[in-house]
Amino acid sequence: MHVIQQTFSVPYSYEVFFTTHLFDSGNPLLKNYLESQAANNLSKRLLVIADEGLIKHHPNLPAQIRHYCASVSGFELAGDILVIPGGEAVKNDMPLFYSLVDAIDQYSIDRHSFVIGIGGGAVLDLVGFAAAVSHRGVRHIRIPSTVLSQNDSGVGVKNGINYKGKKNFLGSFAPPAAVFNDAHLLTTLDPKDWRAGIAEAVKVALIKDAPFFEWLEANATALAHGDLPLMQELVYRCAALHMAHIGGAGDPFESGSSRPLDFGHWSAHKLEQLSNFDLRHGEAVSIGMAVDSVYASLLGWLDQASALRIVKLLQQLQLPVYHPLMENKDGVPSPVIKGLEEFREHLGGRLTICLLKGIGVAAEVHVMDLTLLDKAVETVRSLS
Amino acid sequence: MHVIQQTFSVPYSYEVFFTTHLFDSGNPLLKNYLESQAANNLSKRLLVIADEGLIKHHPNLPAQIRHYCASVSGFELAGDILVIPGGEAVKNDMPLFYSLVDAIDQYSIDRHSFVIGIGGGAVLDLVGFAAAVSHRGVRHIRIPSTVLSQNDSGVGVKNGINYKGKKNFLGSFAPPAAVFNDAHLLTTLDPKDWRAGIAEAVKVALIKDAPFFEWLEANATALAHGDLPLMQELVYRCAALHMAHIGGAGDPFESGSSRPLDFGHWSAHKLEQLSNFDLRHGEAVSIGMAVDSVYASLLGWLDQASALRIVKLLQQLQLPVYHPLMENKDGVPSPVIKGLEEFREHLGGRLTICLLKGIGVAAEVHVMDLTLLDKAVETVRSLS
Repeated sequence: MHVIQQTFSVPYSYEVFFTTHLFDSGNPLLKNYLESQAANNLSKRLLVIADEGLIKHHPNLPAQIRHYCASVSGFELAGDILVIPGGEAVKNDMPLFYSLVDAIDQYSIDRHSFVIGIGGGAVLDLVGFAAAVSHRGVRHIRIPSTVLSQNDSGVGVKNGINYKGKKNFLGSFAPPAAVFNDAHLLTTLDPKDWRAGIAEAVKVALIKDAPFFEWLEANATALAHGDLPLMQELVYRCAALHMAHIGGAGDPFESGSSRPLDFGHWSAHKLEQLSNFDLRHGEAVSIGMAVDSVYASLLGWLDQASALRIVKLLQQLQLPVYHPLMENKDGVPSPVIKGLEEFREHLGGRLTICLLKGIGVAAEVHVMDLTLLDKAVETVRSLS
Repeated sequence: MHVIQQTFSVPYSYEVFFTTHLFDSGNPLLKNYLESQAANNLSKRLLVIADEGLIKHHPNLPAQIRHYCASVSGFELAGDILVIPGGEAVKNDMPLFYSLVDAIDQYSIDRHSFVIGIGGGAVLDLVGFAAAVSHRGVRHIRIPSTVLSQNDSGVGVKNGINYKGKKNFLGSFAPPAAVFNDAHLLTTLDPKDWRAGIAEAVKVALIKDAPFFEWLEANATALAHGDLPLMQELVYRCAALHMAHIGGAGDPFESGSSRPLDFGHWSAHKLEQLSNFDLRHGEAVSIGMAVDSVYASLLGWLDQASALRIVKLLQQLQLPVYHPLMENKDGVPSPVIKGLEEFREHLGGRLTICLLKGIGVAAEVHVMDLTLLDKAVETVRSLS
């Protein structure tokens, strides 16, 4: 018997830029980046796909983008800017997915060209997946337009669409070529979206960075009321923590079962789904973190004062900490808590839940005590 | 302006095993591999997808697979073996692709389970792509059943399906978890498929390994007539050269424009398509190599004797070296040669063609002289 061993590593590298008014003619950032990527003196194409929700608030943006791109040497816009709906629903829209694949084909987007996605996390996930599987992967640039996508999903390496109601069932790991976070785009967000995005910052502070948590406490009221310079600092710090985790933990494409960034998420995914996405992702994560923090304190891992500080911070940020879907009613287990079993299956048979041993200190459990969990839900309800 | 640089590497590792009678109860190879991968004492699932064409010649194989898998600790078969059609046409069948995705969903194939594809290159490409995008990638094992898939496509890192008539327009780079080359499966191949697979061995010998080319010359007649031990040696040497290239050239996921393994392929892809896949891939590659070898000799790169040796070897292997589609007729350029422009576009604007400076010595050109190319076609026609 013969055997040949194959071993290699694939290096990835990309930059996340923080700027404001990205498409102003006086801002050379994107132009400089693209011109540094121009190949062989050939004119290459930019296929721009933008989120309708964003364009409604920035109606001049398409004209600005056209004008800006005309000034970039070595690149030209491929057709007109494609404006597509935003929000989670686009990830269920298979014909829309194929229309993006068709555009990549029709405009001859090749490995020297770029697909540019501008919008919230759902649009970026959809666009990223279309780019990742066309020609076995064309380059894509992300321009996230929400707090959540600027500080979390948009700076990471995943994409995906839903399939038959299953969230992100189809997708891949495909790092972007570059990410441009434009703070100006955040100014027109719905206040609920603005605040929901802060939940991921609380999460990453709780599992990685106690001083950042204290900073969030100190600035919670101003953040909740729309302070842009503070939000820019929050986005930068949160993105940096996420990126350090992805690049530094040795498993960027998640081949193992551990999901240390998923604190508060096991229930959040279920809550989003059961509320028919009436709860935003960040709102659901806020509820999930409140319950899991109290659970950790009931377990004796986290001191009670810290658990209460966490719930208080979420409330100061005007984020929800409780939802009736969490409740165990008349002996019937909460549908969210029943989702634990589904989550165990999703992880491949062994439950792994990230909890807290302290603020800034994460640890994993492989069993959840359902009686304690009910008690945690009850406690959070009384605090809410 | 702030910027965060993200940099990481993703390591990949897999083994290609060479065996015979893989599913005989006395062959512990696959069982040992799977048991080494069993996780957490949980029973995991194997979703087996097999090529109908192969099953026709090996009607007992499904029963053998069921029996074999029952003996593997920690794994169970997920439902019955899925038998799907083989050949290039399956890569155009989008409903079939989604039926595989559905099976991965329905049988809860997770990251500790395996999708196992058994068949020719087209089936493996289709199965590999379904596995690669489900749950952002579940593990897949390849059991290639043709010479071509055992010595070339099946041991590499690509998958894909056709989209709107464009070959491999949708696909990804996703290394298999393991590959098992079973020589016994080759014994029932159609003689034309047996011989067509040898073309990739000639190719890799020509660009990388002159002693292997001499070995092919010495054994051409026996190989063409079905000598299995010689074929096993050929498959092993050819697979090893391909794998060394993928792992050793520093660009396993082909981020650059260079395609040094694509000698003879620019015309081959076009020939396959224009002949409506009446020409097998290996047959088309044989024609492409004959023309490009003579072209290199007309260019003064390759001595004429070597070009003639190459054509003669292909003929001894009973492979075609010429097709009327290559011909420039009444001043109308050959449709294959017109495909050069398409190929240039596919590569992103700069033509890069792999040619020979000697047997075992490849080099690239960025321009093809159409007059010389016509002359090369004419010369090959006169030799055929």
